[in-house]
Formats: sequence, structure tokens, C-alpha cells
Amino acid sequence: MLHHKLINPKSIAVIGASNNIHTPGGRVLKNLIDHNFKGKLVAVNPKETTVQNIKCFKNVSEIPNVDVAIIAITAKFTLETVQVLCREKNTKGFIIFSAGFSEKDAEGKKLEQQLVVEINKVGGTLLGPNNIGLINQNYAGVFTTPIPKLDAKGVDFISGSGATAVFIIETAKQTGLTFSSVYSVGNSAQIGVEEVLQHLDETFNSKTSSKVKLLYIESIENPQKLLKHATSLIQKGCKIAAIKAGSSSAGSRAASSHTGALVSSDVAVDALFKKAGIVRCYGRNELVTIASIFMNTELTGKNIAIITHAGGPAVMLTDALSKNGLNVPIIEGKESIELLEQLYEGSSVSNPIDFLATGNANQLSTIIDYCEHKFDNIDAMVVIFGSPGLFEVYDAYNVIDEKMRTCKKPIYAVLPSVVNVINEIDDFIAKGNRCFPDEVLFGEALGTIFNTPKPLKTTHSNFKVDEIKIRKIIKNAKNGYLEPQQVQALLTASKIPIVQQVICKTKQECIAEIEKIGFPAVMKVVGPIHKSDVGGIILNITSEEKMIVSFDTIMKIKGATSVLIQPMKKGIELFVGAKKESNFGHLVLCGLGGIYIEILKDMKASLVPVSKEESKTMIQQLKSYKIIQGIRNQEGVNELLFSEIIEKISNLVTIAPEIIELDLNPLLGNSKEIMAVDARIKIEKN
Amino acid sequence: MLHHKLINPKSIAVIGASNNIHTPGGRVLKNLIDHNFKGKLVAVNPKETTVQNIKCFKNVSEIPNVDVAIIAITAKFTLETVQVLCREKNTKGFIIFSAGFSEKDAEGKKLEQQLVVEINKVGGTLLGPNNIGLINQNYAGVFTTPIPKLDAKGVDFISGSGATAVFIIETAKQTGLTFSSVYSVGNSAQIGVEEVLQHLDETFNSKTSSKVKLLYIESIENPQKLLKHATSLIQKGCKIAAIKAGSSSAGSRAASSHTGALVSSDVAVDALFKKAGIVRCYGRNELVTIASIFMNTELTGKNIAIITHAGGPAVMLTDALSKNGLNVPIIEGKESIELLEQLYEGSSVSNPIDFLATGNANQLSTIIDYCEHKFDNIDAMVVIFGSPGLFEVYDAYNVIDEKMRTCKKPIYAVLPSVVNVINEIDDFIAKGNRCFPDEVLFGEALGTIFNTPKPLKTTHSNFKVDEIKIRKIIKNAKNGYLEPQQVQALLTASKIPIVQQVICKTKQECIAEIEKIGFPAVMKVVGPIHKSDVGGIILNITSEEKMIVSFDTIMKIKGATSVLIQPMKKGIELFVGAKKESNFGHLVLCGLGGIYIEILKDMKASLVPVSKEESKTMIQQLKSYKIIQGIRNQEGVNELLFSEIIEKISNLVTIAPEIIELDLNPLLGNSKEIMAVDARIKIEKN
Repeated sequence: MLHHKLINPKSIAVIGASNNIHTPGGRVLKNLIDHNFKGKLVAVNPKETTVQNIKCFKNVSEIPNVDVAIIAITAKFTLETVQVLCREKNTKGFIIFSAGFSEKDAEGKKLEQQLVVEINKVGGTLLGPNNIGLINQNYAGVFTTPIPKLDAKGVDFISGSGATAVFIIETAKQTGLTFSSVYSVGNSAQIGVEEVLQHLDETFNSKTSSKVKLLYIESIENPQKLLKHATSLIQKGCKIAAIKAGSSSAGSRAASSHTGALVSSDVAVDALFKKAGIVRCYGRNELVTIASIFMNTELTGKNIAIITHAGGPAVMLTDALSKNGLNVPIIEGKESIELLEQLYEGSSVSNPIDFLATGNANQLSTIIDYCEHKFDNIDAMVVIFGSPGLFEVYDAYNVIDEKMRTCKKPIYAVLPSVVNVINEIDDFIAKGNRCFPDEVLFGEALGTIFNTPKPLKTTHSNFKVDEIKIRKIIKNAKNGYLEPQQVQALLTASKIPIVQQVICKTKQECIAEIEKIGFPAVMKVVGPIHKSDVGGIILNITSEEKMIVSFDTIMKIKGATSVLIQPMKKGIELFVGAKKESNFGHLVLCGLGGIYIEILKDMKASLVPVSKEESKTMIQQLKSYKIIQGIRNQEGVNELLFSEIIEKISNLVTIAPEIIELDLNPLLGNSKEIMAVDARIKIEKN
Repeated sequence: MLHHKLINPKSIAVIGASNNIHTPGGRVLKNLIDHNFKGKLVAVNPKETTVQNIKCFKNVSEIPNVDVAIIAITAKFTLETVQVLCREKNTKGFIIFSAGFSEKDAEGKKLEQQLVVEINKVGGTLLGPNNIGLINQNYAGVFTTPIPKLDAKGVDFISGSGATAVFIIETAKQTGLTFSSVYSVGNSAQIGVEEVLQHLDETFNSKTSSKVKLLYIESIENPQKLLKHATSLIQKGCKIAAIKAGSSSAGSRAASSHTGALVSSDVAVDALFKKAGIVRCYGRNELVTIASIFMNTELTGKNIAIITHAGGPAVMLTDALSKNGLNVPIIEGKESIELLEQLYEGSSVSNPIDFLATGNANQLSTIIDYCEHKFDNIDAMVVIFGSPGLFEVYDAYNVIDEKMRTCKKPIYAVLPSVVNVINEIDDFIAKGNRCFPDEVLFGEALGTIFNTPKPLKTTHSNFKVDEIKIRKIIKNAKNGYLEPQQVQALLTASKIPIVQQVICKTKQECIAEIEKIGFPAVMKVVGPIHKSDVGGIILNITSEEKMIVSFDTIMKIKGATSVLIQPMKKGIELFVGAKKESNFGHLVLCGLGGIYIEILKDMKASLVPVSKEESKTMIQQLKSYKIIQGIRNQEGVNELLFSEIIEKISNLVTIAPEIIELDLNPLLGNSKEIMAVDARIKIEKN
């Protein structure tokens, strides 16, 4: 948890304070004064006695005790300053704007670590260094502008980049989004995005805390912490939207050059966000739009009424919603006719509800009432209302404002006339509302929220695996790819069906063993990893004679040590895999095998542990799901068995985290059984 | 062509002029006066003698001759007014704001048609009715605000919706986009979007005309006209971006309710835009962003340098560009080290080029010079430069302004600080530049442009088809699905290889005919259309005995009239189809057969005529293209033969436009040959 004195200080010292408000030390003091910090302010600057009418001390050792220090001096002087504050001034909160630490070089990193050691000793909290600071309802501890409109129910925003935080705050002005707090973590020396989120989770109060959290992340250092607290907050009723920048490999390079961020696989980020229920965003405008939607009453259905006096934007919004799986249902029946009679001739109520350019505020009010009370197939309303500039539209916007406060169904205001009626829009926002200038960007954001599922239950798996056996196999195995017998033993211990197989070193063994297997059979090379690439798989062996020829062929392959014989099975090719993804832990993947995975990349991934519900959803979200269900009278795949295998693989890698790569490829499945016919497992022990 | 007097009138009458500027007739007069119309203005209003200091006549019959009439009176009075203007006042340009015409009811439609007849008689031009008017550099003939910044090199914008035009003009303020003209076509009684585009094409002057055209379309009434003039303008060096609203089926319903627009298939719209080279947009923000990019020097490569003093947006932009196939290449080598030495410690030049929050205008200038002159692997630059609010940034923006005017490589300015440095942004725009507030929306728009290919050559097909035979078959055929013999004859006449086939009504015929075919063979039912659904296809018939059993099985199917026997062929299943899409003409489609087309919907479509180049591109853009190329040592499909079949189908439907549906499904292909093994053709003669 962040120290409570950092959050709500009784006194703040600005170290490096200045009368020059074009410097960080000058501007932060101005911000603190202008935004009514109610506690005691002191300044430190060797050259001044007062700064901006605040008493100024030559040296930090001269100041009275302070709860928070905001430090805006050259990096090399920060350590001694922090030491004095920690040891002599009982300071617990530290915000260090200064650059020149770990983002610069090894020496800077060392200095940064020394600061952390010092602050840790007294149980203090450090934001930064190399950040823009902290804004909350108690104080504006940043050196940047603008200070956003603050509001206890506004969003809590945590940013891994100071400049980006500024630009996001600037973007937010357009929709009227307000903030409860803004945390800039800079180099995250002690406190990163994850730790602030933990703090927000641990101090969450369902009555007083903001329900919307926004994150801008360049590097996820502690995925499990992020997952834990995001999940917890969402379970408490919060909504979280986040940008994880660096989603492309080129983008990750950019992230590395910026903050020394590590590359983390984007698939793992997606899986983490999905597991927690975080809505993933890719840009500032999108983040702010989604946050502004979050501030509204929650959308509980997919049926949207579009209410407008201008047809074009309604058509474009309908397109955007439909593409995202939302619905603009036809409105019909007695009550729709009743409504139509109250509108001007030429209006349409079939949805979009178009009450024409001449439509007035009273009609708007009536339409909203019908959508709220009479049209049962409507879950939410979007009102698009601009102006050609002929007259003021305060009356219409006042109707929207009033209805947004009184209706149970969510109402979203798209106000496109950002030139003609900017005063009305400002007034609408000043009343505490949010609005959207572009219907399509709004529609896409609503779609993104709609398509981010609520986190699934993560019930504990019921499958009992032979943990002792699994640990024993791993203990005895060497690093690298396991032998076929080890693979078979691990899968068997995990209750994963694998096609019966025998391994033979001689023709005599083959002849002796084939009875167990029966014809037709498949023979595979043992030794080389990529069997099919070296011609090491022979299918449909129907006689002893063919078996012997096949044996000779396979044993000629370079690296062949023996052959593996299996019965020839039929079914749809499936794929299940697992991969350890650095600090995220394991991902389990599933899909159809063959070209589906190789060419079409149709697969879904989840972070371990994968619950029953998650594994089922993974399967159902595959593009090729219809093939699993069975198309055109073709037999499909038993979904329950498929999902169980995913769950069992999740159990296996949990017990054997040394597994860094695992492929069941293919499994062959039909409506009755699924069996692994080929498997590879690679382990790495420390 | 639009009458030249409408474009450049010497005199304008406002019918329904008013002193009340909150009415259309009042506001349009104010706009004309405020925006310096240089010709003569007269007003008509039975109650006034002067309106806004302009001489006012009681009746239109009293006014002197005028080139243009702008009419803002009740619909029912428009016809007599237009008659007087046409017959007595030599008026050639008509803008009718009034509503209550075809968009209202049948009576309104009749009145609208009478207006057109009247205006046609004198060779005049009508914009509207039910529109907002026309703005060009000669006059501001609209009743709406804002009047955008006008500029001969700004965009020409044609809108099918007046309100949407207003909102787009308002959106354009943000980027600094300027306009050369704005045409609102309203109900398109005489002149629609297509006709205005034709006018812009036919009057295009490479020295004086704007090179950027924007369209907002709700209904494409004349696709071939749109295609012709868009293609022509693009060949003359123009760029065109367009929204076709109503792309979803729900959206089309919305379009219908709005302007009585007809549903036109969205696939056909895509195909038309692709053929012409129009960049398709889906929202106002996107349209304006793309137009603002168009106004810049053309991007000729895919390698982008990102230059910034704030890392976060650079990372997000890198992600957005990479996802869209653009490249943010690593910059390295001697010259990059040289550049790095001129920047502050901690900067990065590896791309993104991050010259830190402390970076200054001189450094920015140096970086741009290096990208322009020394980094050969860079085709364009994006400068992201905001401000935390500490000081003004005129110096940096002046550098960007100067470099945009002097550099050969395109430079795009992303200026995110729309609050902190709005004055600097306004100044930058006032100098004639465009900028972008959000790097990701910019990046996506640049990607959309990059991914819209230039129109392909439409060389005339070299394949000689037997036109006489084709016409004879069609002449003798009845409406509906053709008989198998007719299908075979049509394909043969079109030089499309089809598997040999015989049709037999008795077992004896089967026995007699099988010699031509040989075993293994396939037997299919003749009669039912969906053969496989009724069990009407039996594969792999290897003997006379099996053939006779199969015959009995198939002839028991309801509706079976005979059987069709073909040799059993192997190969990859392909699909080629054609469909007549209302007024767009024919579309030809291609893809892989089976689940690829049915489940994965992996297909490409082109408007007929499909050239050699287009058909090749269609194949190469399939998601499953790698399978056609041949994967993992599997034999692929001969692409040339595949593309020739597409071209031949295009030829066939050109000669036989009565074909409304055609399916070659499947064709079986390998590296040597491709043959249709099943085909359906449906015709409809008027």
C-alpha cells in the first residue's frame, strides 16, 4: 500500500522550488497553490527566502517536518536530500521529478536503488523518479498542466509515462471525463503501475471510491500482481481499461528504448487482460472514449435505439454497432405508431428514430420516454444531436442531461457540432455529463466494451493427476525435449488420452509388438524432433510385409534411434499447446491442427490456471468452431473432452512448471473420443 | 456537367430571404454577404422591402434576371417560383433548401419531378431539394455554419446528407483541413453525388483544380458513373476518400428510412471502390484524417521514422503502423551515431527517434534533416510534439512548418497537446498546415491509405470465347437453373475446362457410357439443385457392379431425372462464382472451396470486367493463398490457370448478362490443371 501521508499529506515541501513557473519546481508549487492544497507548504531553494509567497529555506535540513517531499533538483543531489528527509524530517511520501536515473545509465540505476533503500528503511513511498507526479483531490502534485477536473467519482488513472498522461488528460477534455486521481510512476523504482493498482484495490471503499480505473502501461513487471488486483477490483464492481503499448514487435522495441521496458509477449498480455476482464485499448482517444462510456449506467443488453435529428451519423453508427455485434433492432407495434403520431410528418421511429432537422426538445423528451418505458426490446439509447448553426440547442441538451440522470437505461450523448454549439456542449459537460464528438469512434468503443467478456469463474479443477509420478519424471529428466516414453508417462499421469504406442529397435520387436496395436498402423521415427520434415512418419501400414519395409526406410533417417508404432486413428486434427511466457507464467493454447493452426493461425490462449469455463470458451471462440461442432453432416468433436484436455494440460504445467513448451499436435477427435497421436514436451530446470 | 452559372454566378436571388438569421432564408443571405459574394444579390419576400440591407422584391416575377436562385420557401410554392425563374428570368442554377418532396411522400415526389422537368427544359442545374446548398470560392450558398476555410487547393467535398456535411466541416477544424468546394445534393432529384463527381472530372484542370475529393454517400444510384469518373480523376492524379454509409444490413435499413436509399450490397461497394482506387472510410473522423493526409506530399514507401520528445505516443504509433503493414525500421550506422551525438544524453535514434522531454527546436530541425538527407531507409517522418505546459512551443512548430514546405519526404505532424498549446496549434494551422491530435487514429488512417491499392490495369481479355454459341444457348434457355448439358455447353464455349461427363437415364446407358469415363468414377443426381444435401453424390465408384447399385440409390431420390457420371478427380477444391448485383452489374468471386468458403468466408470479389491483373491479385489476397501456393511439400494450384478461369467467367457474364448466379464449386486444381467438377448457372431474362 502507498503510505497514507503521500495520499493525504498535512504538509508538503517542494525541493527546488522556484519563482520561474516555466521550471518544474516553479510550476508544481504554483499548481499546489492554485488548486488549494489545504495543508502547509514549504519551499527549498538556496537562493531564495520566499518563493511564490511561500517561505523558502536554503537547505532541506532547515525545514520543519513534512509528510511529502516533491523533489525537482539535479539527480546527483537527490540522495542526500532524501536521506535528510527520511532520517530527520519524518517524511513518508516522495515524488521525484528529476531525470538521470535508471533510464539513463548504470550509475543512475545505482543511485535510484540507493534512494529506494533509504525510503524503504522508513516505510516511505516513492513515486518516480523521472515522473510528472501525483494529482488527487487533496493536492495537485504535478509540474504539468492542465490539472483535470477533479471529482470523487471521476476515474483513477495510473500512467507509466508522464507525457502520455498529460496528453490523455488533454484528450479527456473533449468528452468531459473527470478524474479522481492521476498517478505517474516514472521509472517505477519502488512503485509501479501494479503497486498503485494494488493500493487502489486494498483501499477500495464501495461507497466513496471511483469505480473506473485507467492504466497506461509500457512494461508489465509483475503480471500476477496486475492480474490479482485487477480481478479483485472488477469483482468489487469496478471497470478497468488499459493501454499496453508495445503490442507489435517494433512497438516493443520502441518501448525498450523509452523506459528500458522488457518485451513481453502480446498474446500473454491479451490473455491476462481477458482473464481479469480488463478492456484493452490501443490509443488515447479510444481509452478516453471507453472511460467516458464506463462512467455511464452499465449497458446490460445489446439492443440499442439511435435517436437523432440527422440521418447520416445514425446510419454510420448503426454500421459501427452492427459490425461489433451490437444490435439496432426494428421498433414496431402499437406504441411505435403512437410515438410516430407525436412527431412531425416524415419522421421515422423504426430505429434509428429520426425526428428530422426540425424536431424539437419536447419531441426528444417524448422519444426518450418511449424508449425507457415502452420499448421492451431496447436496452440503451444513443442520442445524436448536433446543429447546423441556426439556433441554440440548450433546450435539447437539457433534456438529454435530465433524462441521463433519471432513466434506468443508459443514454449516450453524441454531440457532433463541436464548432456550432460548443457553448452548449461545454454547459452540458459542466453539469457533470460526458459526451462524444464522433458517433463511429463512440460505436467502436461501445463495441469493444461489449466484446470484452466479464471474467469467467476460475473454479478449481476436479481432475486428480498423479502429482508424485509427474514430479518424479521431471526430476529424472534432462533439460530439453523429453523421450517419447517420458512424454507418454507424463500425459498418462495427467489423465490425457494418448494413442497406444510401442517403441521398437528391431524388426523382431515390431513383429512381436504389432499384435497389441493391430493393423492399420502408423510408424514414426524416434530421434529427430521434426518427424514429418525428415519423412519420418509412414501412415496406413496394413501388413507385416509393409511394416518391415517401413522399418528399414525409417531407420535410415539420420538420427533415428528406434521406431514408434501406433494404431492408425481417424478424426479431426486438433491442437493443444502450452508455453511458458517469461514472468506471465504459462499460457495454454488450443485450436484445430494442420493448416488451421499453421496457415490461418486460428487459436485461443489462456493464462494458467485454465478453468473448465475458460477452456470451453476458448474452444467456442475459435473461428473454426463450426467444424468442431460438425458441419454438413460431418461428425464433429466432443467439446467436453476437448475442454478437459485443455484443463488437464493446465494442471500438468502447474505441477511441472519446468515445462517450457508442450505440443499435443495433432490430437485426433470425434464425437466419442479424443486422443493425442503426437506430443512434444521441452523442459528447463534451473 | 453542372451549369457554369451555378458554379460562378454573376447574380443570386434568395427566394424566402429574411431578416431573421435563425431561418434558412435569413442565414443563407447573411452567409452570402459575410463571405463576400462579388455579384449582385436580390431578395424575395412578400413582407419586406429590404432584407439585411439588400433590396427585396414582393414577388419573384418582379426581380431582374438572375443566374442562381436559392429557394427557401414552402415546398408547395416552389414549382411556380421555378417556372417564373426558368421562363422569365434566364436562371440556370437552382438550390432548393425546402423539404417536403420525395423524402416525404408520393405527392412530394411528383412535385420534385415536375421541378426537374421544368429546369431540364432550360438546361439548368438543380441541387436539392432538401439540401443545405453549395459552398465554393465564389459564394457561400448554404444556410448552415460554419463556413469552412476556403482554399483553391483544399478538398472538393460532395455530400449525400446536409447535416453530415456540417458535422464533417466541423470535424475538419481540428486538423486544419481546408475546402475548395462543398456540394450538398439533398434528394438528388437531378444531380446526385455521381453527377457532381462527373462535373469535377470533366472540368478538371491539373493546374488549378483540387487534387483531393471527398464523398459522403448514402445510396449509389449509378455505380458505373461513379466508377468511371472516380477512375478518371484518380488517373489524373487525384485522391478520393469516401464514406458509403449503410454498410451493415441494419445500417442499410437506416439509410432507407433516411433518404429512401436503396440497399446495395456492401461487397459490391467494396469492389467498386477497389477497382477505382477510392479509399473507403467508415466515419467522419476517419474521413477527415485521411483527407488531411492526402493534402500532404504523397507517401511512396512504407518506412516511417517517428520523431518525438515523448516516448509513449511513439510506441502506440509504432504499434498502429506495424499492425497496418507499415514499417518503423531500425536506424543505425555511422550517420545515426553522428546524429545521436548532437542530441542530449539519453536520447535514442534507433527509431522511434526520442530526443527527450528536454529536446529543443534546433535538435528537431537536425533530426528532420538527417531523416530527409542521410537515412536512405526512411520514406516519411511523423513528428509527435506536445507540451507538458511549461513553456510555449512556437519554435518547434515553426521548424515543422518550415520542413514540411522544404522536405521532399512527407512529414506528418501529430500535435497532441490540444489544451496546453492550442494557440501554437492554431498558428501552425493558420500557416496552411494540417496536423493530427491522436497518433493512433492518424496511424490507422495512414495504414488505410497504404492498404488501398492503386487501381490495377484493366487490360482487355485475350481469351476468345464462342460468343455466337453462348448467345444461342441463352436464347434457347428458360429462366431459372440451366440443365447440366446447357451448363457444360456454356463453360465449353467460354473455354473453361470441365470434367468430362455423361448423363444417363438407364443402367444400360451407364454401362455403355462408362468406357468414356473409366473407373474410379463419381455419380451425381440430376434434378435436385443441392445434390449433396439429398445424398445425391456418390464418390469412388470402382466397378460396374458398384455403379449399378449407385444408380438405383440415386434414382430413388425425389426429383431425380437421370444421373451424371464423371471421372473421379483429385486436387485442391477451388471456388469461382459470379453474381449480378442490381445496378452494379456482375461481381466475380473466387476462393478455396469447401469449408474455406462456407465457414471461413475466405473469398475475394471484383466487379466485371475482371482483368488478368485483377484476377491474379484476387487470388493472392486470399487468406488461404499459402495453400494455393502449396504448403509443407503439398502440391499447390496453378495460379495462372486459376486466374484465367476467373477472367473467363468475367467474359462469360459480359456476353451473357442474363446470368444472375453462377457457381463453379468445386473446381479441382493442382499444379498442372484445374477443372470444374460441378457447376450451377441461373439465368433471368427480362
